[in-house]
Amino acid sequence: MELRKDPITRSWVVVGKAEKPVVAADDCPLCPGHREAGKTLLALPANGPWQVRVIPHLDPLYRIEGDPARTAEGMYDRMNLVGAHEVIIETPEHSRTLAAMSDEEIERVLIAFAMRIGDLKRDDRFKYVTVFKNSGSMAGEEWPHSHSQVVATTFVPRRVLYELRASRDWLTERERCVFCDIARQERRQGKRLVDEQGPYLAFCPYASRVPYEIWIMGEPHNSRFEIPDPTADRRDLAALLGRVLRRLVRVAPAYHMVIHTSPNERQTKGELSGHWRTLADEYHWHIEILPINAINSKSYGIKETYFNALLPEQAAEQLRGLDSL
Amino acid sequence: MELRKDPITRSWVVVGKAEKPVVAADDCPLCPGHREAGKTLLALPANGPWQVRVIPHLDPLYRIEGDPARTAEGMYDRMNLVGAHEVIIETPEHSRTLAAMSDEEIERVLIAFAMRIGDLKRDDRFKYVTVFKNSGSMAGEEWPHSHSQVVATTFVPRRVLYELRASRDWLTERERCVFCDIARQERRQGKRLVDEQGPYLAFCPYASRVPYEIWIMGEPHNSRFEIPDPTADRRDLAALLGRVLRRLVRVAPAYHMVIHTSPNERQTKGELSGHWRTLADEYHWHIEILPINAINSKSYGIKETYFNALLPEQAAEQLRGLDSL
Repeated sequence: MELRKDPITRSWVVVGKAEKPVVAADDCPLCPGHREAGKTLLALPANGPWQVRVIPHLDPLYRIEGDPARTAEGMYDRMNLVGAHEVIIETPEHSRTLAAMSDEEIERVLIAFAMRIGDLKRDDRFKYVTVFKNSGSMAGEEWPHSHSQVVATTFVPRRVLYELRASRDWLTERERCVFCDIARQERRQGKRLVDEQGPYLAFCPYASRVPYEIWIMGEPHNSRFEIPDPTADRRDLAALLGRVLRRLVRVAPAYHMVIHTSPNERQTKGELSGHWRTLADEYHWHIEILPINAINSKSYGIKETYFNALLPEQAAEQLRGLDSL
Repeated sequence: MELRKDPITRSWVVVGKAEKPVVAADDCPLCPGHREAGKTLLALPANGPWQVRVIPHLDPLYRIEGDPARTAEGMYDRMNLVGAHEVIIETPEHSRTLAAMSDEEIERVLIAFAMRIGDLKRDDRFKYVTVFKNSGSMAGEEWPHSHSQVVATTFVPRRVLYELRASRDWLTERERCVFCDIARQERRQGKRLVDEQGPYLAFCPYASRVPYEIWIMGEPHNSRFEIPDPTADRRDLAALLGRVLRRLVRVAPAYHMVIHTSPNERQTKGELSGHWRTLADEYHWHIEILPINAINSKSYGIKETYFNALLPEQAAEQLRGLDSL
């Protein structure tokens, strides 16, 4: 397996056959008492039995050892498939969902996200660390036991790259952060707001790609999710996320949740060479939640342009009306 | 329904409910003798019974009347959903597939593609004309009768926009067309070539997103699919496309095929203002064929980065070995 760069769209594709180990269909590998002999990358709280545990992925796509060894094949670029791939077990209880957790428990999960991002960014081979959650079988969930995944890559995923370019252009033209502008307009207009707590707001974005898409962000400008917001309490973020998820699970059987944070500022070259450090500072972390309602055959027209039959204003109104307890 | 622009990724999303007319499940609406009373936008050949017929889409997403009326909502951009949406009926025979057609029949379909693109580009409200084919139910095919679709939009679809940006950057740095470079390297290396005829080549791209992805392009630089290649014969292209599709249907039950051509050069402002005309000239038309082998629940990790288990070199070797008659 290796990484190849599409010279036209400039995004990286993993090609080649994975050497899939045969995973025994035994008891849940994420429950306490299973695979405890394996490596633990992080356990919270620091003392006593773990409430959140981070382990290497049982069937990792990216392997931590080695050098990306970026080389050319004629006009093309390739790299070895080096990276980190971890599982964040969000609770020792097999059937407890993130939506059902207390604010304190959710905060602990967010702290684990932050600690893993911070740790992996110290490895200057990695340009980006993605934390994401596949919730529900339609979201491609690997185990039913509540968990998230961490992937550190030697490239910046294309969506983040587009976001970085757009926020740089916005800043150049207007001398303002596009994410700060969005937060201000959403609070002022209110019609797409789902909920808020302290400096944090949850809203259905103006150009939502799917019904009930929700973004969560903080108003104090902070590019790095892994660094606590200077004037905010992470417990507020946890409380807001819990209320949002409890509403969401009433309207969608599955969702993807993704933390968007700044790329690794230790990188000084690559896709956006020169501006790298500045770009990392200019970014604004946020959480994107994309509900999944159906797995359909898709027309090319729909792959190319998103069609969302539900107006974000109506989605937000419905979500506001749902019980968040 | 309306178009809204995502300020972060700068792509347009269609939001709002479509007013779906109830389509009676009667006989095939694309067969001769059905809906002949409706409007015919093009019929080929010019005399005698039609072999290829273009009609307005029976349930269009975009409507031809009106002004896009691009306006602001605070920091956001929106437009009315104006556009063209047509169906190219590729044959009067209900069960005849594009892969099964003669070179002459395929050439006639390609001529219809070109004529509709050329005609719609005369409308300066439209920035781009997409011709695509959903073949097979897993590709979101609307009717089993062989057909393609034409969509003219008041925006350039995001993938084409990324391609335009990348080809401009390549040209600026190297003073060469990235597509011409690709064609030369693929011919020279040969290992990803599937087939060739005259100045046209078919190959599995270096960073193929899915197994058996195939691109077809011509070596003489020509940005516009709708204008015949100066030193080439379209019959050669038709013959090559037929052979490629006959191989492909042996390994994939469904596929998307898309014509990539230059944006409308009558546009002088918008996403890439100023450079527009030059960009249109610098582009290089090509055909992308994306086979579909399964409709799966996808992990977020797979949505964000493509994973393709089949090396393009192996895919090309397999395809070369298949019967193309």
